[in-house]
Amino acid sequence: MSHDQLDELRDQLDKVNLDLLEQINKRARLVKEIGEVKRQQGIARFDPVRERKMLDHIAEHNSGPFETGTLQHLFKQIFKASLELQEEDNSKALLV
Amino acid sequence: MSHDQLDELRDQLDKVNLDLLEQINKRARLVKEIGEVKRQQGIARFDPVRERKMLDHIAEHNSGPFETGTLQHLFKQIFKASLELQEEDNSKALLV
Repeated sequence: MSHDQLDELRDQLDKVNLDLLEQINKRARLVKEIGEVKRQQGIARFDPVRERKMLDHIAEHNSGPFETGTLQHLFKQIFKASLELQEEDNSKALLV
Repeated sequence: MSHDQLDELRDQLDKVNLDLLEQINKRARLVKEIGEVKRQQGIARFDPVRERKMLDHIAEHNSGPFETGTLQHLFKQIFKASLELQEEDNSKALLV
């Protein structure tokens, strides 16, 4: 294995990082939209049943190498950040 | 806005979750490969300069809605989990 191969793998990793970035932000835009719909319908933003379903869905589709527990931990962090984004939106809406 | 629209948005979110799952596992496979190359070359697995560069790269390409700080926090969690995966591999290699 040469240094070039390491550079090549790192280039691939950079591309995956940008794909992940795009998907995480795409997810955030969807969550904001969902938050807006829920706000209009007077539905609570945090839905633990829905969160559980999403975590189960991830478990069903995990082919590794990450263990499901690790992935669910990472997704919970993403869910939490997304919920905070919805809360910011709601605070702004209340100020209007 | 009807309930159907909420369902439609949730279907889109499920798809993004699966895309994210795929990218995170793809990233893990690359990191494992990089770890193997580094092990063969006797290079330290954790490289704080490289990690800093990846975080800067993410900051440069962030178009929101997540703030860069939030994204970097999420990516650090992904980096940490990936490093743990490399360490598991290394422990197994040492046992061979």
